[in-house]
Amino acid sequence: MCNIDILRHDFPILNKIVNDQPLIYLDSGATSQKPQCVIDSLNHFYTNSNSNVHRGIHTLGDQATTSYENTREKVAQFINAVPKEIVWTKGATESLNILAYGLSQSLKPRDIILISALEHHANIVPWQQVCAQTGAILKVIPLDETLQKITLSETFKLIDIYKPKIISLSHASNALGNIQPVKEIIEYSKKYQSITIIDGAQAFMHLRPDMKNLDCDFYVFSAHKALGPTGLGCLYGKYEVLNTLPVYQTGGEMIKTVSFEETIFSEAPSKFEAGTPNIAGVIAFGSAIDYLDKINFNAQLIYEKALFLSLRNQLENISGIKLYGDLDQNIGTISFNYKNEHPFDIATLLDQYGIAVRVGNHCTQPLMSSLNIEGTVRVSLAFYNTKTEIEVFIKHLKQCLSLLD
Amino acid sequence: MCNIDILRHDFPILNKIVNDQPLIYLDSGATSQKPQCVIDSLNHFYTNSNSNVHRGIHTLGDQATTSYENTREKVAQFINAVPKEIVWTKGATESLNILAYGLSQSLKPRDIILISALEHHANIVPWQQVCAQTGAILKVIPLDETLQKITLSETFKLIDIYKPKIISLSHASNALGNIQPVKEIIEYSKKYQSITIIDGAQAFMHLRPDMKNLDCDFYVFSAHKALGPTGLGCLYGKYEVLNTLPVYQTGGEMIKTVSFEETIFSEAPSKFEAGTPNIAGVIAFGSAIDYLDKINFNAQLIYEKALFLSLRNQLENISGIKLYGDLDQNIGTISFNYKNEHPFDIATLLDQYGIAVRVGNHCTQPLMSSLNIEGTVRVSLAFYNTKTEIEVFIKHLKQCLSLLD
Repeated sequence: MCNIDILRHDFPILNKIVNDQPLIYLDSGATSQKPQCVIDSLNHFYTNSNSNVHRGIHTLGDQATTSYENTREKVAQFINAVPKEIVWTKGATESLNILAYGLSQSLKPRDIILISALEHHANIVPWQQVCAQTGAILKVIPLDETLQKITLSETFKLIDIYKPKIISLSHASNALGNIQPVKEIIEYSKKYQSITIIDGAQAFMHLRPDMKNLDCDFYVFSAHKALGPTGLGCLYGKYEVLNTLPVYQTGGEMIKTVSFEETIFSEAPSKFEAGTPNIAGVIAFGSAIDYLDKINFNAQLIYEKALFLSLRNQLENISGIKLYGDLDQNIGTISFNYKNEHPFDIATLLDQYGIAVRVGNHCTQPLMSSLNIEGTVRVSLAFYNTKTEIEVFIKHLKQCLSLLD
Repeated sequence: MCNIDILRHDFPILNKIVNDQPLIYLDSGATSQKPQCVIDSLNHFYTNSNSNVHRGIHTLGDQATTSYENTREKVAQFINAVPKEIVWTKGATESLNILAYGLSQSLKPRDIILISALEHHANIVPWQQVCAQTGAILKVIPLDETLQKITLSETFKLIDIYKPKIISLSHASNALGNIQPVKEIIEYSKKYQSITIIDGAQAFMHLRPDMKNLDCDFYVFSAHKALGPTGLGCLYGKYEVLNTLPVYQTGGEMIKTVSFEETIFSEAPSKFEAGTPNIAGVIAFGSAIDYLDKINFNAQLIYEKALFLSLRNQLENISGIKLYGDLDQNIGTISFNYKNEHPFDIATLLDQYGIAVRVGNHCTQPLMSSLNIEGTVRVSLAFYNTKTEIEVFIKHLKQCLSLLD
């Protein structure tokens, strides 16, 4: 990634004019933009080889199946896993629901499920449902209000007290951008054979997780947050753990034999993939992975970090702005408020300048409660953003805030 | 649809050359081909307004949300329902799983679930799972082996005997093409307040179901079998019944408030739509519905019927061919075998001529057992097929069969 301007040409939407201004897209935490190769991949599939997979012996069916399974291999390589550990889902949320359902079958009353105060609703509510059904108890690693993050000392203490059956943590917070110390927590939790689940929805594109290095049992993410299309997610599971989970949805594609008396299911990953999958989505995600593989990941990290520091410094210099979260270990997402102004008003004004930021509770109401706020303005960066965009954003933000004063 | 040749130009893949021959795609039962407007819609979304829905107040987010919700309205109009009765899922299979899970909560041991012998695994296995969990009992309306369909007399008799809590039937068989007499069965079952579910995966594009006319409680279908993209399905439910179902997957988008102590869910349809949905897929499906709306539906039905009759007559005239299913009430799908030849061999030879047909058990193993066969060769038509394609198919089929003799 030597030249950001060249790279930006790969993303057609970044040339768009919004409200008579060049679009400045600072909402990649909600969904990433897509490079032309991903759009072309969808186009190419539907124009040249659209067919159902696994069931056909005709040429189109073979082509579709090969491209579809190739992506499983690409994703596995990207995260240092093997293809049979990759399950296609409709998103990170579904992946977490599959795990909550599957793991609930072996929970007993009073078993502990441990999450953090920074979790997205998708990593809270499924566990609440599991607790209601099984009598297990949900415990929460609190936010250190001064440091605006969870601390390892408090986390290790709680692991020792609770000996949790399941620990489910975001790799990075969608609301604050905090990179959480999941590797250390995973390692520590082996003391109690806890099942470890990492929600990588936000982290996947920024941290390129390595399954062998992290050594978690499960890792989930969504394609649309990592340059891929909507409607697709992934569940990685260590094969020996993944394959012991019970089936979730049932139907075609995931069975060996069916009679009206008895059904025998396939092995993982196909036992979790009932029905016609998101074939075009998977194949296009393969193009996204190719693209992520092509750009220089270390250079991207350095670039993102520099962008984030520039953004952080400029925001810190605006009087009345309050920043949240861990600003040192961060994926490039920054949440803030301005005096007592409603975040909604700030975002509405910014939109008039073609600037897209997100406001609200970011599906993290309990975290917002911990922070004693209703919501924030959230700026979430990606490697296709530029320093100029940050400067223009800051300029217009100041104008907006002066209107509100 | 005055001119099939003009209409075929809308489907770019139909011009494709496969194995040096013009593609003859006779596998629309597995997945339909896509008109250019659907491909363009995906392209347009990712190039111009890609953003997450419901959460943003920026311009792209508004555009995405409007287009996304417009499709809900289009689909509702298309099937004569209201938008809040339309739930987006990842496919007909997921829709059936949501129903199986939701309805299982109020089943008691020995309650009866009634399906037919012609069901796809997706309308068998979820109910087997429900029975294993609840003690309910799965009963099957048998195939009349002479007529190759279920009969109303036998069905009504079984409904009277079993007074089923749930009746779940395919509107049309994916393996044989039979159009099932679901309207009469739905009406009859009101005697016992049975919950009625119709699997419209195959029927949706051919029969344009009308919810008010059918008067079922639930109807499910998949976008990819109706000109739309992969990875998207729909669950229609009569609102008062739909909204009483418990939540299924949980996470963002489907809640009112979350705290670590308690979560309050939204009303239907959003309570069933956890996580970022298949935004681009939904919007592109809107283009598919526009397209289906644009073509003359009655003319299409007449055309498909004529195609099917031509195919049927020509197949019946080939000595040694055995046809299955109800050839009078049929959506344009025909299953056959030739002497004792393996269907696989026939399809492999046909593929050399660029002809795509499907072989196997079509995810209907119990139906195949009823017919005492392992599988069939299946030809499934759509309105974009032509009489010339049928003639070329028959010519090459005869050549293939002579090679096998």
